[in-house]
Amino acid sequence: MCFTYACLVSTQAQVLYDFTAEPGNNELSVREGETITITNQTIGGGWIEAKNSRGEVGLVPEDYIEVSNGYRKWFLQSNGNDPWAVFDNNASGGFSNNWAAQPEGTETGKTSSNAWHSGGHGHPQAYQGPGEVGPVWAYPDYQLDCVVADPKKGSKMYGLKSYIEYQVIPTTTNKPVNHRYKHFDWLYERLLEKFGSAIPIPSLPDKQVTGRFEEEFIKMRMERLQGWMSRMCRHPVISSSEVFQLFLSYKDEKDWKMGKRKAEKDETVGVMVFSTIEPEGLPDLDMIEVEQKCEQFNRFTRAMDDGVKDLLTIGNEHWKRCTGPLPKEYQRIGKAFQNLSSVFISSGYEGEAALTDALTAAGKTYEEIAQMVAEQPKKDLHFLMETNNEYKGLLGCFPDTIGVHKAAIEKVKEADKLVAAGKITPSDKITMSKRASIMSYSLQAEMNHFHSNRIYDYNRVMQQYLEQQVKFYEMIAEKLRHAHSQFTTM
Amino acid sequence: MCFTYACLVSTQAQVLYDFTAEPGNNELSVREGETITITNQTIGGGWIEAKNSRGEVGLVPEDYIEVSNGYRKWFLQSNGNDPWAVFDNNASGGFSNNWAAQPEGTETGKTSSNAWHSGGHGHPQAYQGPGEVGPVWAYPDYQLDCVVADPKKGSKMYGLKSYIEYQVIPTTTNKPVNHRYKHFDWLYERLLEKFGSAIPIPSLPDKQVTGRFEEEFIKMRMERLQGWMSRMCRHPVISSSEVFQLFLSYKDEKDWKMGKRKAEKDETVGVMVFSTIEPEGLPDLDMIEVEQKCEQFNRFTRAMDDGVKDLLTIGNEHWKRCTGPLPKEYQRIGKAFQNLSSVFISSGYEGEAALTDALTAAGKTYEEIAQMVAEQPKKDLHFLMETNNEYKGLLGCFPDTIGVHKAAIEKVKEADKLVAAGKITPSDKITMSKRASIMSYSLQAEMNHFHSNRIYDYNRVMQQYLEQQVKFYEMIAEKLRHAHSQFTTM
Repeated sequence: MCFTYACLVSTQAQVLYDFTAEPGNNELSVREGETITITNQTIGGGWIEAKNSRGEVGLVPEDYIEVSNGYRKWFLQSNGNDPWAVFDNNASGGFSNNWAAQPEGTETGKTSSNAWHSGGHGHPQAYQGPGEVGPVWAYPDYQLDCVVADPKKGSKMYGLKSYIEYQVIPTTTNKPVNHRYKHFDWLYERLLEKFGSAIPIPSLPDKQVTGRFEEEFIKMRMERLQGWMSRMCRHPVISSSEVFQLFLSYKDEKDWKMGKRKAEKDETVGVMVFSTIEPEGLPDLDMIEVEQKCEQFNRFTRAMDDGVKDLLTIGNEHWKRCTGPLPKEYQRIGKAFQNLSSVFISSGYEGEAALTDALTAAGKTYEEIAQMVAEQPKKDLHFLMETNNEYKGLLGCFPDTIGVHKAAIEKVKEADKLVAAGKITPSDKITMSKRASIMSYSLQAEMNHFHSNRIYDYNRVMQQYLEQQVKFYEMIAEKLRHAHSQFTTM
Repeated sequence: MCFTYACLVSTQAQVLYDFTAEPGNNELSVREGETITITNQTIGGGWIEAKNSRGEVGLVPEDYIEVSNGYRKWFLQSNGNDPWAVFDNNASGGFSNNWAAQPEGTETGKTSSNAWHSGGHGHPQAYQGPGEVGPVWAYPDYQLDCVVADPKKGSKMYGLKSYIEYQVIPTTTNKPVNHRYKHFDWLYERLLEKFGSAIPIPSLPDKQVTGRFEEEFIKMRMERLQGWMSRMCRHPVISSSEVFQLFLSYKDEKDWKMGKRKAEKDETVGVMVFSTIEPEGLPDLDMIEVEQKCEQFNRFTRAMDDGVKDLLTIGNEHWKRCTGPLPKEYQRIGKAFQNLSSVFISSGYEGEAALTDALTAAGKTYEEIAQMVAEQPKKDLHFLMETNNEYKGLLGCFPDTIGVHKAAIEKVKEADKLVAAGKITPSDKITMSKRASIMSYSLQAEMNHFHSNRIYDYNRVMQQYLEQQVKFYEMIAEKLRHAHSQFTTM
């Protein structure tokens, strides 16, 4: 696990080389010597977002600029070899949930090596704006992702047991591996066990027994597994973990089975995961401040949880209206126009044709609109709902994650009494504080990860939603314009 | 009352002079010598609708073309001086409802003079398409209309009685006259009494006692009185009647009072109105055919009544949804986005501003859309509903009008028995048939009037509806496009 603690003293930057924006990519053209203001340094991929003196905002390559007043950074790094051997033993003795409050043990064996974090290469990717963001996870230069695709029906025991097998293709190797839903579930259990105290691990899409071979269900589950996997891939700690790497790129059946057995025996789970963090070089944290931050996170996640649930409720109602009464009403309007047209045709009056043709066309247009209205939620509301559902899942994990930290803080607050009562030594108290600090750093890094992902996700989903909404209303206008043109102006 | 019976042998016409269409007026450019097909000759104002050899349809000035194979026409004209004096006496003796079945009396005093029908000038304005339309009213060259405007509170009896007075300005004199609702109601009663057997006279907008000084109510009533007056103006028989002319252009209070008294004493009312029709020159009608036509009209008006009522029911429900639950839902979506934005602002995370600003703007956009949705029915559905309400009123009058004709036909069918029983002479029977023929001509002319107006009205209202709908959806798309542009592309 690796931290970067970045404190940005200034967001002013000097442009080192000319850069010409490519149109449509939200880039910003800058000239050598120009002073720009960094507005978002969490973009990744070698880009930062900056604003020029004319107020224009866009992306600029990180290498083309130099931050004026510099920033400090710290790294906390560890390898995955369970360095705190003493804790491993204790952990297996039912110790895990109180680790942060236990003064015993010493930290050993921290070496700086990690699949995705190479030396001093890591950019502080989660700070932005003027002021201080605090600890962030060290993000890999290359963002892992994967594709979940090609669901196939498989069978076992001479066809007695059927299941759906998905292909998972990591963008790193581009080599597909096969997984059934129960494998994803196994991965979820492992990640929850190992990282659940530090990182919210959202649940997998619901299991379903009946109808699980129906096309619609398989498509929806695949889409949700894709969303879940992409979110896991985006997390630097999870995506670099041995178990996750195993899941994405096992060589063969034997490799998978051996890896599974090893992961199931992993003892660096629960709060023990914090023991893999190197606290050296980190500034000491004030416990009052830690508590306040924790409380702020708590309030925020609860408020967002309410907001997300509210949006989901409204979205569900809107969905129902858009697929139920509203298209039915447009259909009835369409039928009423067509019915009137039929009546007009029966008049026996010559010269009805122009009107009745136009009226029939208008009626059919409203029937088409009815269908468009009914199908629209799948094109826009669906993604807004899926994203908010994902966030609902994520936010539901935070109370536990925050609870672990709160308990640690409480223990540290009691430490003075314990020292006075001779139950622990002053040195034990210092160790306890250090560990609570580490947990707080971890929580802050996780919150910063959550925030930057949230900003990215909501930007993306709102764009997608509004884009589809625009298309929808434009198409209705276009259809009605055509219907209008068929009436004769007199 | 004046008829034109037009039988179109051919709808081909030769263009006499070049004519260049003015853009946006639905005109059709034609060249001298070109052959065009007349598609609608009921346009009026000196225009006909025609199609050229490329299938393009548009308006062409009537004087620029010559109908290739000509057409025959008959006129039935009378003055308003109650020419059948013998019937006047009988009518006042409770005779009116059986006039068509009574063989007594002879027709006298038919002269051809009429305010709006000048000599052989009248065009056959209600035939169109290949084939025969049958009898049509002779339409004036100049289409009368009027404006109902400027409602003012007036009072009587030293302020003890308050009322609203409207200005009625005929397009002929452009000289405003004042009328209260009760004067419109008086006019309605006169028209119903005089023409009700031959012409459906739609009811006035509902009377209302409470809230009748409220701005919204006055505006709505004025709009409906305007609609009613315009419809009456459009009818050549009604608009040229003495009582209608009095209402529109009385000179002073004395003139109005005298005219009122005279109109109230008018005895050419009920079925007596048919006595003002000159049957000479008309081809004899086959009673079987007359009955079939009558039945067809009956079926048509009933079917249209159903269709119109259906559309009104659906329109009402749509109105309720558009002003109730739908905008409420958009408002809630808007609030949910803004709420999420507020939560995001509270994160304490730097660099939220771009997302939260965009999310707030998107939320406000949906609140604006909510308001647009709620206000839209007034801009489009309103006119569709008003027009259909007018037609519901009109259609409600047809059963009575048709009933008068059916009764006349029944009597004619019994005539043979009555002759055999020696109750009437064979000559009486011929007179009865002639009168039933006149009533049938009248009904056919009225149906043709109804049809051509209906085609005009539904063309216009559908155009208006769809035009406003297009604008509405375009504006929503535009607003959402703007909201979309505020999100950052990453």
